[in-house]
Amino acid sequence: MAKQVYNFNPGPAVLPKDVLRQVQSELLDYKGTGISILESSHRAAEYEEVNSSTMKLFRELMGLGDNYKVLFMGGGASLQFDMLPMNLHPKGGTAAYVETGSWAEKAIKEAKKVGNGTVHVAASMKEEKFGRIPKQNELKIPSEAAYFHITTNNTIYGCQWQYVPEVGNIPLVSDMSSDILSRDMDFKKFALIYAGAQKNLGPSGATVVIIRDDLLAKCAEGLPTMLSYKTHAGKDSLYNTPPVFAVYVVRLVLEWIKNQGGLKAVEKVNFAKKERIYQAMDLHPDFYRGTVKPDSRSWMNLTLRLPSEDLEKKFLSEAKAAGFIGLKGHRDVGGIRVSLYNALPLEGAEKLAAFMLAFKKAN
Amino acid sequence: MAKQVYNFNPGPAVLPKDVLRQVQSELLDYKGTGISILESSHRAAEYEEVNSSTMKLFRELMGLGDNYKVLFMGGGASLQFDMLPMNLHPKGGTAAYVETGSWAEKAIKEAKKVGNGTVHVAASMKEEKFGRIPKQNELKIPSEAAYFHITTNNTIYGCQWQYVPEVGNIPLVSDMSSDILSRDMDFKKFALIYAGAQKNLGPSGATVVIIRDDLLAKCAEGLPTMLSYKTHAGKDSLYNTPPVFAVYVVRLVLEWIKNQGGLKAVEKVNFAKKERIYQAMDLHPDFYRGTVKPDSRSWMNLTLRLPSEDLEKKFLSEAKAAGFIGLKGHRDVGGIRVSLYNALPLEGAEKLAAFMLAFKKAN
Repeated sequence: MAKQVYNFNPGPAVLPKDVLRQVQSELLDYKGTGISILESSHRAAEYEEVNSSTMKLFRELMGLGDNYKVLFMGGGASLQFDMLPMNLHPKGGTAAYVETGSWAEKAIKEAKKVGNGTVHVAASMKEEKFGRIPKQNELKIPSEAAYFHITTNNTIYGCQWQYVPEVGNIPLVSDMSSDILSRDMDFKKFALIYAGAQKNLGPSGATVVIIRDDLLAKCAEGLPTMLSYKTHAGKDSLYNTPPVFAVYVVRLVLEWIKNQGGLKAVEKVNFAKKERIYQAMDLHPDFYRGTVKPDSRSWMNLTLRLPSEDLEKKFLSEAKAAGFIGLKGHRDVGGIRVSLYNALPLEGAEKLAAFMLAFKKAN
Repeated sequence: MAKQVYNFNPGPAVLPKDVLRQVQSELLDYKGTGISILESSHRAAEYEEVNSSTMKLFRELMGLGDNYKVLFMGGGASLQFDMLPMNLHPKGGTAAYVETGSWAEKAIKEAKKVGNGTVHVAASMKEEKFGRIPKQNELKIPSEAAYFHITTNNTIYGCQWQYVPEVGNIPLVSDMSSDILSRDMDFKKFALIYAGAQKNLGPSGATVVIIRDDLLAKCAEGLPTMLSYKTHAGKDSLYNTPPVFAVYVVRLVLEWIKNQGGLKAVEKVNFAKKERIYQAMDLHPDFYRGTVKPDSRSWMNLTLRLPSEDLEKKFLSEAKAAGFIGLKGHRDVGGIRVSLYNALPLEGAEKLAAFMLAFKKAN
């Protein structure tokens, strides 16, 4: 019997137990083929079914039509920081970015390096230590831009966009690596969404890019073949060998979400989870010091400091002993980070909240 | 009880049964952590151990010193067709390639698109339908080149280099995707080796790049961060989230190779396997028509045609019914392809050879 552990890792992260059990049960013989999915050709009917049904599930769960292409790639979201401007930042054009955390900073840095024109920073929260998301009226939206990029959730600093910015006719692009499919929203407002799989979607090793046809049509020609969105879209993500196993697990996770009742149901549980933790924090705001303004608080990564680093160490050590792992804040920020991705069960958040209250009492 | 199947898929391909059993047995609880390796942080001690021990095993099995860096990436070998010239084809310089099959053609095409100088084709076998590997004296070796690229095995056309070309002081680079670790050779003759994992190393989703320090030092500066070998080498392949699970399976496969007795032992079995099939072909050369000259025959992908397409269809259909799957030739070539990667057991080759003789007799 494995010990009971609640996995608060910021990514790669917890996966649904039912999904892991299914992976385990069919690992030696995938659906009667006599071979493992790890040994399946990406040209085999079994994988083509995985590939197309995973694309379909993304569209279905997100309420998107066939005018969105779903692509699976390797390289992580970090590679998208390069591919996005390569494909969509035209010579002499402008690309707009909002700087709301470390990942947004990296995306901007790559756009400056790789893009062919001006990188316009529509707002930067750096001087406020990424402690909040800018309001709509703080965004300096250029009259024309090839795209407008946001990072919906900031895994490291713990802030999250709680609204979708209005940017007129500019195609809205988002890195949703750490909050994709965690709640219902109007995904049709976005022209391109990308996300590394390893937080809410599956294991590391796959990145999903969802791109609307009109933006796809604008992608540059003559790019290195593997770095062109058109290459992958033109071959339904089977131009070369995809990360078969990672996509297969993503499919199981999407089916699990669908079986929960889709994004509305998942959102309800995620709301309850983050409420448990923030309520525990807010009962003792001098002890559990949130690093983010209330209106920008993330549902996925809840960041806090304790009165001293010694207390933080003690907290982490006692939490680990109690079966709560992965709570250490990112090395750039320190403190505590509570990651509450989809697969973290409500009881995990409840038990951690109880642990927090007991820890406060004892210290 | 799963049905007995011999998996001759050209890639993704068969994996050792012992490896699959171990993956299955520890899937829900990785070494007592209480979580799956699929949920493990890439910054956790468990994965750092997987990462560093896999690098060490590559060096050990290949007889390479610490002056070679081992990198793990996503994107497949196809992304390396771009990364190689981006990193190592200097402005105005020459990069030499030998055209021995479809993958070599693609590598050349990308070098022409991405490289900053001249692409020199040292030999092309295209007019001979890639039916053999050029001899040393047929190679037009430039007096100076940034690197000299070969594709050691041609998965599609079934030919394989049976010698390592002498190229003087030019750094020798090889795509070894479909024959890496299949036999013992002097890997120190190479300055850079890359391979998609999905043939001899593990599942799809990881690509290994092995690069010698002196060549690494020559890599271009200012590249898109994720496309720079220096980025990955400087962070021991932990710059961003790697394909954790795929690298973990690669480690198990390398341990399996080591436990067999290393590359010399693996080579002995691979020799026996390909002999069984080629002997069956050579008994009936008018029926089983090899497409490659004997001195260039691949040990990994054995390609042949039958007297008619109808007979080929019948062969494939009866073979499949007998449990031999994945034997269909690549769509560019047609016919039959017998892929005999490391994990395909000797008895699989023996049984297929017997099946071939019986099929000939009956037809």
